Amino acid sequence: MSGNSTGNLFCVSAFGESHGPAIGGVIDGCPSEIMVDYDLIKRQLSARHNDPLAINKRREPDEVEFLSGIMDGKTTGTPVAFLIRNKDIETRDYPQEDSLLLKPSHGHFSYWKKYGVFDYRGGGRASARETACRVVAGCFAEMYLRQFNITTEAFTVQTGKIKSELPFDDCNSEQANENPLHCPDNAAAERMLSLLEETNRANDTVGCIVGCVIRNLPAGLGEPVFDKLSAELAKAMLSINAAKGFEYGSGFASAGKKGSELNDLFLSDFRTKTNFSGGIQAGISNGNPVYFSVAFKPLPSIGQDQPSINTNGNPGLLKAGNRHDICAVPRVLPVVEAMAAITIVDHLLRNNAYRTK
Amino acid sequence: MSGNSTGNLFCVSAFGESHGPAIGGVIDGCPSEIMVDYDLIKRQLSARHNDPLAINKRREPDEVEFLSGIMDGKTTGTPVAFLIRNKDIETRDYPQEDSLLLKPSHGHFSYWKKYGVFDYRGGGRASARETACRVVAGCFAEMYLRQFNITTEAFTVQTGKIKSELPFDDCNSEQANENPLHCPDNAAAERMLSLLEETNRANDTVGCIVGCVIRNLPAGLGEPVFDKLSAELAKAMLSINAAKGFEYGSGFASAGKKGSELNDLFLSDFRTKTNFSGGIQAGISNGNPVYFSVAFKPLPSIGQDQPSINTNGNPGLLKAGNRHDICAVPRVLPVVEAMAAITIVDHLLRNNAYRTK
Amino acid sequence: MSGNSTGNLFCVSAFGESHGPAIGGVIDGCPSEIMVDYDLIKRQLSARHNDPLAINKRREPDEVEFLSGIMDGKTTGTPVAFLIRNKDIETRDYPQEDSLLLKPSHGHFSYWKKYGVFDYRGGGRASARETACRVVAGCFAEMYLRQFNITTEAFTVQTGKIKSELPFDDCNSEQANENPLHCPDNAAAERMLSLLEETNRANDTVGCIVGCVIRNLPAGLGEPVFDKLSAELAKAMLSINAAKGFEYGSGFASAGKKGSELNDLFLSDFRTKTNFSGGIQAGISNGNPVYFSVAFKPLPSIGQDQPSINTNGNPGLLKAGNRHDICAVPRVLPVVEAMAAITIVDHLLRNNAYRTK
Amino acid sequence: MSGNSTGNLFCVSAFGESHGPAIGGVIDGCPSEIMVDYDLIKRQLSARHNDPLAINKRREPDEVEFLSGIMDGKTTGTPVAFLIRNKDIETRDYPQEDSLLLKPSHGHFSYWKKYGVFDYRGGGRASARETACRVVAGCFAEMYLRQFNITTEAFTVQTGKIKSELPFDDCNSEQANENPLHCPDNAAAERMLSLLEETNRANDTVGCIVGCVIRNLPAGLGEPVFDKLSAELAKAMLSINAAKGFEYGSGFASAGKKGSELNDLFLSDFRTKTNFSGGIQAGISNGNPVYFSVAFKPLPSIGQDQPSINTNGNPGLLKAGNRHDICAVPRVLPVVEAMAAITIVDHLLRNNAYRTK
Repeated sequence: MSGNSTGNLFCVSAFGESHGPAIGGVIDGCPSEIMVDYDLIKRQLSARHNDPLAINKRREPDEVEFLSGIMDGKTTGTPVAFLIRNKDIETRDYPQEDSLLLKPSHGHFSYWKKYGVFDYRGGGRASARETACRVVAGCFAEMYLRQFNITTEAFTVQTGKIKSELPFDDCNSEQANENPLHCPDNAAAERMLSLLEETNRANDTVGCIVGCVIRNLPAGLGEPVFDKLSAELAKAMLSINAAKGFEYGSGFASAGKKGSELNDLFLSDFRTKTNFSGGIQAGISNGNPVYFSVAFKPLPSIGQDQPSINTNGNPGLLKAGNRHDICAVPRVLPVVEAMAAITIVDHLLRNNAYRTK
Repeated sequence: MSGNSTGNLFCVSAFGESHGPAIGGVIDGCPSEIMVDYDLIKRQLSARHNDPLAINKRREPDEVEFLSGIMDGKTTGTPVAFLIRNKDIETRDYPQEDSLLLKPSHGHFSYWKKYGVFDYRGGGRASARETACRVVAGCFAEMYLRQFNITTEAFTVQTGKIKSELPFDDCNSEQANENPLHCPDNAAAERMLSLLEETNRANDTVGCIVGCVIRNLPAGLGEPVFDKLSAELAKAMLSINAAKGFEYGSGFASAGKKGSELNDLFLSDFRTKTNFSGGIQAGISNGNPVYFSVAFKPLPSIGQDQPSINTNGNPGLLKAGNRHDICAVPRVLPVVEAMAAITIVDHLLRNNAYRTK
Repeated sequence: MSGNSTGNLFCVSAFGESHGPAIGGVIDGCPSEIMVDYDLIKRQLSARHNDPLAINKRREPDEVEFLSGIMDGKTTGTPVAFLIRNKDIETRDYPQEDSLLLKPSHGHFSYWKKYGVFDYRGGGRASARETACRVVAGCFAEMYLRQFNITTEAFTVQTGKIKSELPFDDCNSEQANENPLHCPDNAAAERMLSLLEETNRANDTVGCIVGCVIRNLPAGLGEPVFDKLSAELAKAMLSINAAKGFEYGSGFASAGKKGSELNDLFLSDFRTKTNFSGGIQAGISNGNPVYFSVAFKPLPSIGQDQPSINTNGNPGLLKAGNRHDICAVPRVLPVVEAMAAITIVDHLLRNNAYRTK
Repeated sequence: MSGNSTGNLFCVSAFGESHGPAIGGVIDGCPSEIMVDYDLIKRQLSARHNDPLAINKRREPDEVEFLSGIMDGKTTGTPVAFLIRNKDIETRDYPQEDSLLLKPSHGHFSYWKKYGVFDYRGGGRASARETACRVVAGCFAEMYLRQFNITTEAFTVQTGKIKSELPFDDCNSEQANENPLHCPDNAAAERMLSLLEETNRANDTVGCIVGCVIRNLPAGLGEPVFDKLSAELAKAMLSINAAKGFEYGSGFASAGKKGSELNDLFLSDFRTKTNFSGGIQAGISNGNPVYFSVAFKPLPSIGQDQPSINTNGNPGLLKAGNRHDICAVPRVLPVVEAMAAITIVDHLLRNNAYRTK
């Protein structure tokens, strides 16, 4: 209820501040007897550290310590708790005397109004650092989905104004693996990387759009009315730092279309000829691939001085910090995959509950 | 958990099928001593019946019966239950022999796979008829918000390819009231109405985008990480029938922007010069107006025959029904307002809980 | 969250005041394709009207109207909503001038402090009338449990100081059916009935204890730590009006026993020789019968004048009302069965969720 | 939903096995700006280690490490996560060849049936070790309650057949502090201690009853119908290991009483002359002290060999372990206090939510 938990049956509770002792999480409702794939966790955390411009050279990989819920390499059905120590804290990035200077388009002000206090040491709970915990929890969801061959894969589809125009059907893992942005269109990826370099030189940041495809999802997942699968995916995606928009299937472009254009006619095997529905009909999966896009704003920590105000209302100058990402991609890709997997597992379990025959 | 409830503290549970005896809902957690404004309920339900082309002449207004939770014209703090009888049922719109023919881009197939059964009498639980209950519940939320002067107002901002280009700041109720689409741009509204007429003549439907502004929201609403206000609004909006996308603040356009362009610098009163954040920072309201957009696909019930398949996989021809809406707007406007109000009240109550000083 | 809903997956939301238009409920999460047994509902509601002393002659049976979630006599998986009109309201039992006189050991005072208002027309939401809705919802739970042959049966085991000394194993339906208190010990039942008559003549009421046995429950139901099956049953039972205590298995008598006496040793088929555990071990069912007891206080509406105070703190005399029950039994028996069934179904569904193999 | 979380607004998620790396918890919804009283935590954890017979000499105190949610000695409003390392693990208490022998009246069998696996290393998640996390979380609840002067105090009121006959009103902290069982009746305490010694010599264990008083609770806490304060306390108490029964106010003895005896008449200040209601009327606190009792069975780990069966159904002899407690008291006292405090804070926050005036 206080925002740090997600999921009803596969329930992830996360904790931790960027500049506190540790971040971590508890998965309550992880089914038992899942073989833990530690390599997957390492791989996804490392993807979250992916730094194609090699800007953050000192960054050490996150190390996860598991505290419970695993025995003999398998889950036991009891809560899986884990933590990641914050080793690489530079609490001096922003000098003490500026500690109460409000960073534009950051969470400091809104946290301060909500709680009466904010974490002047760093981004606190609003820091994107917390997404590492989503990635770890997401790996457990992905391990569970494997037995059903269900996959969640995220791609970079836009960076700045540069777009991959490939339709979702043609988003191909192998091709995307050829470039560090995991963009299905290698030519676009090259131009995106140039844009990132240029943006870095300008001490600026840039926005992006991530696409995600969920394959092999059975029909029947999602709940009617308020907990539609599309609504739950929207919430999951908008909960990621810097997310500004979500669309699935024909998305915003639907507004300009006619019903006769967008209706998905059935094939004789109950699949549909087209998939403008994005695999979800009336909020419930229909057996076709689910696909959606998430828009992320340019990260607000830019390498430029910015005028701001202090918590007492007086003006001040926020000096540029010395360490930042240029764009949410590619680091956000495993986070999108994790949130998709967590959402899907929760709905698989919800659906299981009622299938008693 | 089964999708027919929303909200944690202001909790709305809804029920009912389009062709069953009644639809209705229960609001558990409606604060006590709110004066019930029956006129508001009538007005919003009537807005949900708004039919600018006068296509559905026989449609009678919905009448709400209240069963509990109100005494002497005020809420008592106990559950407010209400029902609306389905008076105007034509179970013969689709003849019995076609009853198991699957309607393209409708919920029949996915409900069938989920529950083993679907409501062949009509749209069942997936019918947009259920949104009347959202509107009634939303009115109670709006009555509560009044004491804080908080308003939720939805506008038509796009129909087909015709857009109102007015920024959210200039979306003006009085102007919007001059046209039946509640579009803030009267010139655009005129062209939209022509498009609707033309689409009607073509026995087709068309998509749209609805914008919504929440005014006078205090800072501090929304919960960190998973229950960000933006995430909760996204879920609420994507839960509405035919919704395909959600964006807030700078939205999808953020992808093409730089951080130096989008950062909202503070004014000395803690408001911000610009409002690309859409009134929400790190998932928590920051005291600026909240605004967002929702895209709706063209309604899938078109006035044209469509090839389809039967539940046994055999082909069949779905004959055009004789009664449908051309576009989600203007009928969906009070539904968007209702879902916004319900979401905001829930977060106001959640925030109240922790403010004990 | 506001107390009028119970269950996580089989979720019952109830509403209604004793002197309002109607009471009712919504079951969200009722599995689909359950054949609705309307006779069972009638029988259980009639058991809730059971009046062995024939005191309330005018009392009409409750009639349930179903509003949704049922088609062709079977559940559809969507919410089952129902209502019972309050036909037999005598708002004049307590004259208007006494309306704000506080009834001792009733909910008026605590509701007033909570909500700023209380229902002076009758018992409001705190009236035992609401238990009719529990019974209706419980019948749907019982219909579901039938396919697993699981039964919940409640017995009168104590009335005043008169006890049935039969152990739970010997509680026998046929024997209990021979007396109107559904007491497994017919000799005790006879004395109990005399006590009820005597208490009635004295214009008083008397307390009681109800025992309940759940048979054929598989092992593995209940969740560890906070949602133990025993804890959930305790909550369900203490939620019934006038309940004052709960114990299961060896119960309060355990305090006076040694570990070597109470440990349940295993038989070779994994059942246990004794069942002091009451079928629940570490909060999770172990395949033996579950049994528990619930204590109910004497009903506070007595046929005697009582001194009290008004809401302004001034003294007043509360005149004896003309209509009351002498004891919670036998009317509470179907309520105990309903709450047991609802709790068990919720845990069956929760357990189903994780069993994916 | 999977049993390892409790509370709606003050939500505690716990994790950890007795023989795993660590146990711990996350409090999501701890109000901000509470001064953390580390001494209280130490004191309550040490009370949970209270060992009046000095049986477990090697036992080291639990050390809590806080991972998040605290800054400058105060809570920040974000999740408070903590862990306690399992330092003192003797995985060899039960030799490997016996590892699959089922312990009578322990959770191994029911966990095995639920999850397909059980923790053969020790008590796993079913071990009373997890109650240390309840105590830590409970301390944060107690810190919050202090500002309202609300206290939760637990007493030993029965051990074996030896009872303190003091009414709850006369349960006095100072007197109780004079004996290591925190029994309000020092003469009874002396006989209880003798019984414990005698039981220890007999390599046996004994049951007990704990009483608890909540003082200075305002009227209006608790929710109607299903989430009555009494029902929530019952659930909280029955969730504690080895708990077998709960009663509040006049409790089980109510069964033998008349309504005219038990009705609590009002005083002119709205308190009541008597308090048979136990401070809760219709499930909502009425401003009088809340009191209740919890029965605990004799702990099932006895110092005697016991016949049992293996997971393959073959008989085996379970050898007596070398380390156990004789009785749930006094160690369970801080656990009862913690669960009471957690329950009360959750209801205070729930009640706050709706008080907007």
